Amino acid sequence: MTGLVRRNPPRVAPYLAARFARIGVATVHEAQGRRGCLASHMRPIYPGARAVGTAVTVSIPPADNWMIHVAVEQCREGDILVVAPTSPSDAGYFGELLATSLRARGVVGLVIEAGCRDVAELKEMGFPVWSRAISAQGTVKETLGDVNLPLSIAGQVVHPGDLIVADDDGIVVVRREEAEAVARASEAREAKEAATRSRLAAGELGLDIYGMRDALARKGLRYEDA
Amino acid sequence: MTGLVRRNPPRVAPYLAARFARIGVATVHEAQGRRGCLASHMRPIYPGARAVGTAVTVSIPPADNWMIHVAVEQCREGDILVVAPTSPSDAGYFGELLATSLRARGVVGLVIEAGCRDVAELKEMGFPVWSRAISAQGTVKETLGDVNLPLSIAGQVVHPGDLIVADDDGIVVVRREEAEAVARASEAREAKEAATRSRLAAGELGLDIYGMRDALARKGLRYEDA
Amino acid sequence: MTGLVRRNPPRVAPYLAARFARIGVATVHEAQGRRGCLASHMRPIYPGARAVGTAVTVSIPPADNWMIHVAVEQCREGDILVVAPTSPSDAGYFGELLATSLRARGVVGLVIEAGCRDVAELKEMGFPVWSRAISAQGTVKETLGDVNLPLSIAGQVVHPGDLIVADDDGIVVVRREEAEAVARASEAREAKEAATRSRLAAGELGLDIYGMRDALARKGLRYEDA
Amino acid sequence: MTGLVRRNPPRVAPYLAARFARIGVATVHEAQGRRGCLASHMRPIYPGARAVGTAVTVSIPPADNWMIHVAVEQCREGDILVVAPTSPSDAGYFGELLATSLRARGVVGLVIEAGCRDVAELKEMGFPVWSRAISAQGTVKETLGDVNLPLSIAGQVVHPGDLIVADDDGIVVVRREEAEAVARASEAREAKEAATRSRLAAGELGLDIYGMRDALARKGLRYEDA
Amino acid sequence: MTGLVRRNPPRVAPYLAARFARIGVATVHEAQGRRGCLASHMRPIYPGARAVGTAVTVSIPPADNWMIHVAVEQCREGDILVVAPTSPSDAGYFGELLATSLRARGVVGLVIEAGCRDVAELKEMGFPVWSRAISAQGTVKETLGDVNLPLSIAGQVVHPGDLIVADDDGIVVVRREEAEAVARASEAREAKEAATRSRLAAGELGLDIYGMRDALARKGLRYEDA
Amino acid sequence: MTGLVRRNPPRVAPYLAARFARIGVATVHEAQGRRGCLASHMRPIYPGARAVGTAVTVSIPPADNWMIHVAVEQCREGDILVVAPTSPSDAGYFGELLATSLRARGVVGLVIEAGCRDVAELKEMGFPVWSRAISAQGTVKETLGDVNLPLSIAGQVVHPGDLIVADDDGIVVVRREEAEAVARASEAREAKEAATRSRLAAGELGLDIYGMRDALARKGLRYEDA
Repeated sequence: MTGLVRRNPPRVAPYLAARFARIGVATVHEAQGRRGCLASHMRPIYPGARAVGTAVTVSIPPADNWMIHVAVEQCREGDILVVAPTSPSDAGYFGELLATSLRARGVVGLVIEAGCRDVAELKEMGFPVWSRAISAQGTVKETLGDVNLPLSIAGQVVHPGDLIVADDDGIVVVRREEAEAVARASEAREAKEAATRSRLAAGELGLDIYGMRDALARKGLRYEDA
Repeated sequence: MTGLVRRNPPRVAPYLAARFARIGVATVHEAQGRRGCLASHMRPIYPGARAVGTAVTVSIPPADNWMIHVAVEQCREGDILVVAPTSPSDAGYFGELLATSLRARGVVGLVIEAGCRDVAELKEMGFPVWSRAISAQGTVKETLGDVNLPLSIAGQVVHPGDLIVADDDGIVVVRREEAEAVARASEAREAKEAATRSRLAAGELGLDIYGMRDALARKGLRYEDA
Repeated sequence: MTGLVRRNPPRVAPYLAARFARIGVATVHEAQGRRGCLASHMRPIYPGARAVGTAVTVSIPPADNWMIHVAVEQCREGDILVVAPTSPSDAGYFGELLATSLRARGVVGLVIEAGCRDVAELKEMGFPVWSRAISAQGTVKETLGDVNLPLSIAGQVVHPGDLIVADDDGIVVVRREEAEAVARASEAREAKEAATRSRLAAGELGLDIYGMRDALARKGLRYEDA
Repeated sequence: MTGLVRRNPPRVAPYLAARFARIGVATVHEAQGRRGCLASHMRPIYPGARAVGTAVTVSIPPADNWMIHVAVEQCREGDILVVAPTSPSDAGYFGELLATSLRARGVVGLVIEAGCRDVAELKEMGFPVWSRAISAQGTVKETLGDVNLPLSIAGQVVHPGDLIVADDDGIVVVRREEAEAVARASEAREAKEAATRSRLAAGELGLDIYGMRDALARKGLRYEDA
Repeated sequence: MTGLVRRNPPRVAPYLAARFARIGVATVHEAQGRRGCLASHMRPIYPGARAVGTAVTVSIPPADNWMIHVAVEQCREGDILVVAPTSPSDAGYFGELLATSLRARGVVGLVIEAGCRDVAELKEMGFPVWSRAISAQGTVKETLGDVNLPLSIAGQVVHPGDLIVADDDGIVVVRREEAEAVARASEAREAKEAATRSRLAAGELGLDIYGMRDALARKGLRYEDA
Repeated sequence: MTGLVRRNPPRVAPYLAARFARIGVATVHEAQGRRGCLASHMRPIYPGARAVGTAVTVSIPPADNWMIHVAVEQCREGDILVVAPTSPSDAGYFGELLATSLRARGVVGLVIEAGCRDVAELKEMGFPVWSRAISAQGTVKETLGDVNLPLSIAGQVVHPGDLIVADDDGIVVVRREEAEAVARASEAREAKEAATRSRLAAGELGLDIYGMRDALARKGLRYEDA
């Protein structure tokens, strides 16, 4: 039943993806109602990594990276590859050669719930990867998987064409249908946070800015001297 | 029963905290009899982080950061916030806005046995955090906890006002009553290590410097050629 | 039965070790038939770490670093210390003083399936360490272990005198008897990868370069439009 | 955006669910093309647990079980409750009282990627639970989640109304649309395995029954005497 | 500084401990305000284990069980031994011989944040143990620890003489000073739960029994048909 | 380079294996100088499991069980199969059909550092398995491994023909050359422990039986009243 490659799924439009270029993962996650964060075991392979792109999804056997080669052909400018194995593996599915091939097609990064290798070279290339592990352990090319089907990865479902935003804080997925609304909400949140930041920097307390004191008292918060 | 904020607990005095300014966590830990290290899953969010401060403790529900807002008001110059959830959570309780607020009050860092977010911004601000996870996952503001009660965190008990020393090696807590003795013992240990370092660099062996050969032989150590 | 130090085991020759100086761990691992990688929980304590050396092996009790002092004397120019506890421990067995002593003898690095401390100092010295944990937690000097016996570490067996190659991707062990053949195979692989890299960078697909399309079709790969 | 309860989603029909009553999780998983197994950290709270039912899904905040109370009302005869927190938690969301309530509505079990408590009582009741942890740690009732939306749990997506089969080997989800085909394929597989079992018990080798020798030789398998 | 044995700390009185004989860990935890549960990695070595006793605390080096022998002498009828290593260890500190010795003194069980062995024999003896691991790995007798000092274990602080209640759900600690109040609150909670259980078994919903519908609506819960 | 099957390695003789029939894993481990225990993540799939046998070793790719079929043919009466993947996997490599085949050849059990399935059936058959995980997740048959080469598994090296003793406490390996000496030492230890057990049951303290008081005092142990 596996072994299916879906071609040309609709994607979030480039102009829309571009609105997320400078918005952080935490902001996007809050702006869409605190949804869509991948699990915290997914980490960038070097600090300062950041990527925004449209998902090409790959479901792949443990320790077998054949389908990544298949997926490369399905990628286009502005995509990000999103890969999860069908059972847990920390083998090194991905390295500098595959990154070279993806970059030649305009792919902006990789999210993989498994291992990555050649991390020094990838850092030098500036090709960002978020992975579960770093491992030099090689993989085989024997068994099929799927490209561009909905993918369960790190506690979230990613559909092909969804928007992926990834930075030092992790990864968030934005559903394609919701991208415009989430862009707007994220921008609004950023503006509001800038105002709050100034007040906090000036020494005002969140307790007062957010008006929390009454609610805390109603819950029963009490003070006493030590 | 939760929901108590204790105000103004006694703290290690600033002149005493200052004596720890350049002493490493490992040295302090050895100097106080190999006690007080928090578990190794607590890691700085960026390399080179370092902080010495007096503990303001926060016991907090999983994935709920309301009490951090409450705790900010209890902080003063030279404090460090020490936070643990009542059951395990890796949600992102803390980010740049709270750091801005803490900094405005002179707080020198955060130790949290949970998740932290906005790590790129925190690194840029130079606000050091030691956490169990990095996560963009947001939290709610619904349930009370406690501020400035003794706190069990990462295998140690921290009392409000205790001294916290944290660097790339992790975190150590020094009991308030013992801070002066530990400062003295740490300084002595540093002096002694400097002397040993020179001898080791010159090629002398620890086996000889520490006089271990007899004890090893008594335990039965034997040599043979390969 | 423990408490044995084997002196002067044969080692991979320096001229042969030198051939690995610029070859990555992933390449070596592939060149020797995808064998020899240590488990991915072994990580460098700072990015950019790299070492090639001949193994001096140490089997050591949990949270007791006495035998590292014993092992220092057995080390010579070009060695790398390889240490595993007899049951799991993340205590900080190793720090700057031991590194100073090892460096004085020409040792190029440490691989330890336990904890390491003084990581800021080790980074400044440029003394590379690969460990399972970073921990300031001290150790005792009470119980014997063995030096230069075969060692099971992180899923691999390391024999004294084997070659260790370690970089940002992890650690690989090359059996002494196979070092020459693996050097040759690694060099050949590097040459071949350089050619492939150029073609991939120019936009050719791995599917075509490696001639995978027929095998994929035989396995049943099918395409459909989204 | 959270806080939605979808009522009366279509479910796999009872007569169809009944066909899975005596089929093991491993067989179902193989029969549907090796798909649908939840991750192995999900374990039954007592040995011999077994359940087949239609999924009522619950997305729920960490350490907050309010929405389980909401979900009970949505359950009917033959359902199984499937619960995942929005960020990791091992708190004890569920115990004997909720099981009593579910049983009164004909619910056959619970799958929860978090903690469960009252396990002795649940075992005595014969109410099967598969969970990530066992924990007496209580939860709050403060924050909303969703009922009967698609749920990402333990590496799989469960849609409301899908069929869940769970036993000592773990849990598998069968998509509602595929339940009939999977029932047929599972029954066929069981029949075939019975025949193979007899031959293996009589001493025939899998190498011969499955005709593997040629394929192994082509891959390069070689034999030598020790 | 370690190496201290405190003799004869005050303990919860036997008549008071007896009131907890049939109360579950989850009930006690709730009755004292959802506090005191040890982390869920602490598990009984066999199902059906249950113990109520007064804590004799032991802080002990990793993989060294000498101080357990010291602690035996400090135990009396109705005690439970509570042991944590100073850095993580899963070695097998405890087995049938130590259990025989403890039983001869009237000790009712062991809680250890490390490994236990001889689990088949312990089950046959009916000597209950809650541990982090099961391991045959032996320990040494070389280094001192402390007996009857406050102990940080599995996320809680246990003081000598505190009451420990442990069953299949885990372990809860009740502070000595609070034991009477917690006994009363636990008994009240049990009575109340019995009433609720009958109503739930009869098909009433928690939504109605607990009067949750209004609060849920105020939070924004909404219903729609699938 | 993989793909080698070594036939007929020498094995510990049956009469010698028989001497271990009633000796526990912990006793054997102690008797051979506290060596040879596999890591504690290896657990029996049902309580009361016990096996003594000679090792047939299998190195196997992640999530691929082809080589287990190859290994069956190499097994004979009294063997135990010992299997480790070349990179971590918790897939379900082994179930009832393979157990039926092994039993037909007189194999007494399985040790696998990966997943096992059909655990209810295996328990009913009384075929003992020690594994890292229980998982219904299936495997492929695509890639070769090795049979009867030295195997690194769970922190130990197992050579073909070595003796494996496994029970509820875990697994210990006894080197073939040492089996006779270890049998003798284990029997002696059992006799000695029987004597100690009687004295402890009668209320004597280990402190006195083992004569520990002087050594403890020399280390600095001190007593004070609470």
